Amino acid sequence: MAEQRRLHLGAVMRPVGIHTAWWRYPGSYPDANFNFRHLARFAQTLERGRFDAFFMADHLAVLNMPVEALKRSATVTSFDPLTLLPALAVLTEHIGLIATASTTYNEPYHIARKMASLDHISNGRAGWNVVTSSNPMEAKNFGRDEHLEHATRYRRAREFIDVVTGLWDSWADDAFVRDVETGVYFDPDKLRALDHQGEFFKVLGPLNIARPIQGWPVIVQAGASEAGRQLAAETAEVVFAAGGRLESARAFYADIKSRMDRIGRDRDHLKVLPAAFVVVGETAEEARAKRAKLDSLVHYESAIASLSVMLGVDASKFDPDAPLPDIPETNSSKSARERMMELAAAENLTVRQLAQRAGGYSGFGFIGAPKAIADEMEEWLFTGAADGFNIMFSHAPGGLDDFVDLVVPELQRRGIFRREYEGATLRENLGLPRPGNRFFDMSSNEK
Amino acid sequence: MAEQRRLHLGAVMRPVGIHTAWWRYPGSYPDANFNFRHLARFAQTLERGRFDAFFMADHLAVLNMPVEALKRSATVTSFDPLTLLPALAVLTEHIGLIATASTTYNEPYHIARKMASLDHISNGRAGWNVVTSSNPMEAKNFGRDEHLEHATRYRRAREFIDVVTGLWDSWADDAFVRDVETGVYFDPDKLRALDHQGEFFKVLGPLNIARPIQGWPVIVQAGASEAGRQLAAETAEVVFAAGGRLESARAFYADIKSRMDRIGRDRDHLKVLPAAFVVVGETAEEARAKRAKLDSLVHYESAIASLSVMLGVDASKFDPDAPLPDIPETNSSKSARERMMELAAAENLTVRQLAQRAGGYSGFGFIGAPKAIADEMEEWLFTGAADGFNIMFSHAPGGLDDFVDLVVPELQRRGIFRREYEGATLRENLGLPRPGNRFFDMSSNEK
Repeated sequence: MAEQRRLHLGAVMRPVGIHTAWWRYPGSYPDANFNFRHLARFAQTLERGRFDAFFMADHLAVLNMPVEALKRSATVTSFDPLTLLPALAVLTEHIGLIATASTTYNEPYHIARKMASLDHISNGRAGWNVVTSSNPMEAKNFGRDEHLEHATRYRRAREFIDVVTGLWDSWADDAFVRDVETGVYFDPDKLRALDHQGEFFKVLGPLNIARPIQGWPVIVQAGASEAGRQLAAETAEVVFAAGGRLESARAFYADIKSRMDRIGRDRDHLKVLPAAFVVVGETAEEARAKRAKLDSLVHYESAIASLSVMLGVDASKFDPDAPLPDIPETNSSKSARERMMELAAAENLTVRQLAQRAGGYSGFGFIGAPKAIADEMEEWLFTGAADGFNIMFSHAPGGLDDFVDLVVPELQRRGIFRREYEGATLRENLGLPRPGNRFFDMSSNEK
Repeated sequence: MAEQRRLHLGAVMRPVGIHTAWWRYPGSYPDANFNFRHLARFAQTLERGRFDAFFMADHLAVLNMPVEALKRSATVTSFDPLTLLPALAVLTEHIGLIATASTTYNEPYHIARKMASLDHISNGRAGWNVVTSSNPMEAKNFGRDEHLEHATRYRRAREFIDVVTGLWDSWADDAFVRDVETGVYFDPDKLRALDHQGEFFKVLGPLNIARPIQGWPVIVQAGASEAGRQLAAETAEVVFAAGGRLESARAFYADIKSRMDRIGRDRDHLKVLPAAFVVVGETAEEARAKRAKLDSLVHYESAIASLSVMLGVDASKFDPDAPLPDIPETNSSKSARERMMELAAAENLTVRQLAQRAGGYSGFGFIGAPKAIADEMEEWLFTGAADGFNIMFSHAPGGLDDFVDLVVPELQRRGIFRREYEGATLRENLGLPRPGNRFFDMSSNEK
């Protein structure tokens, strides 16, 4: 009998909300992104909601934006993910802990050791979100004037992953005998130096920490480009996908899985989890009202600047309380302009409302009552568009609590989400195999 | 009235014990250096003993040694300090958490952000042990064939510290207004990009996390060379000193403090804490018997190899159960040879016992009953040799418990060690001032 297909859910915190006004929403904790107690409460709530993972996005810079927008942005301060997640590990028992770490501005030895340490401290709940860092502001904090060109970044990422996974395999799982009688701490036949020499890295090894509990922490990626998709199909176990229209999500899903088929990887060994912004209400009207309230908290000057960029025209000249006038084609991104025009028409938004949507968060989302959200998620799950979602909350704790208290039980009633954690590790909860050790396991490994 | 002079105590875990046989001692936890629960229990015991700090030494490699010695060494596996300490922060309230991080194999932006994150998560208990990494095995894990030459390492360390402290000053302490009404998250006049360009680093900034609770985490160093002493006198707040003879410790102490005088730093703003191995017994005899037991657990082949290196002759030819024969002068380090010969004579050791001391731990220590240890510590404290000690335990949990339960109360009775923590932060407990912000504080800072 085929097993019931079930959702996997990650919670994306960057560091708290993706919507630029989340911190102003009534009841939010405005200091949450540098208040450890609040973040710990969020992680514990997510664990009560049986989420697969707490997923910490990151940048290595204060991002460049006009000061009027910057001074309103809570993203300017956030914890380093690999410093925050070990602390959250102590206050949780089951939820996975996924840290973003850049392959462009790190050394593989550090990332291998830190991720292995997190995996031991959390008893097998670590994940690594591999990013290549495309923001030029990050380059300037690491001695470079320009960020690396796209293809170079991806070649480096590929080699970086090879080195890190090779370092994780330095020790056989049973290397440490710790025989107090004879005084032998480990079996030297079960230790191997990687001795890697490649285009970007030269790393002797071995890693100075025992093999991670999970063999390897779970590897997560978000690349949507041709190079990013291929890297994901070859090396990722979770893909943080863009949301968007159902048809384009299906096409992306099919593309990733067929790339896996072509290289002989089992398609169940990678979970595609689109990012979804969620606003939950008791009714559809309440959810829409919550979102309207949240959007209304986006400062108009920042909002109109965002909208102008998307439309490719100076939108500050329009009447803020009138509908969007016709916009001629410009040099701006056609898709962004069309998306804004469709949005204005579909929801009958004024210029102000549209601008605040653009300046708040205008990406894919589920806005509605719990049953309607569950219906939509079910459709994505059963029509080849997703293996689950990476949820972004409207605000916290309120928006997070709403999801856990209202949507999760509905998903559980339908049998498409777990009531209890299935396994002890993140890998087990995601239904992913434990990787064999390239040096010590004779059984053939998928890789 | 002058305040009573008091000891400061750090506990050095590398990752658990410095003596190579610590993990074999009866009652030790042999897996402690990758068992988080055990390390958490140690940290909590140290906090009960009112230690200033848990100090985590580190290397970025499996160190090079003959396989017969290596396979007996527990140091081959250890947690990354900056991943372990945030987890320990959650399970403790008062004790400082000092992480070793290399200036040779890191980027300043990462260290600034991770240390700031640890400082926020621990509510002001972070410290940074600045090391320049002289071990050639570390170089080989970071793309280099040879480690950097000494003077270059120190110039790089100096610039690294300037960049890190500059990044910590990116935000004024009161930058984050988080005004929910107006939507202003921070005051842009209270944010400054460092824009550093130097010999080794080019870092724009600002750092993407609020200023640390302590202003700056406490800066710790161990350099004993001319360059190391000068760097310490200029930038360190705690010096991890070598122990040794009282007279040479006094000379070192006086040298560091007079270097501070010469550059106009307040000599109380740096604490000299020599490393001290401690074995506690109810009586002197019991302590000596414990140490003899511990030494006896050092494997003879490894031990004799260590002794041969120190003496500059092949000691394996000597009768293990006879006294050390006369050793002619050799090309070996004269001080190591003389120290071994003096040790053998002073304690009437056989070749085997001497070898096991050399292969276990032959550095400075306090071995005795609690009152005798307290007498010695008092002498160091009141005769200008130390501001306290960095304690290394013979084994754990036993050796650590003995110190906390037997020695600490004796120090407290004498009024030379705290009964309760004085402050909320590591800096306050050490009696160190909170650094002003170079960009935003008008009052003159000591620098």
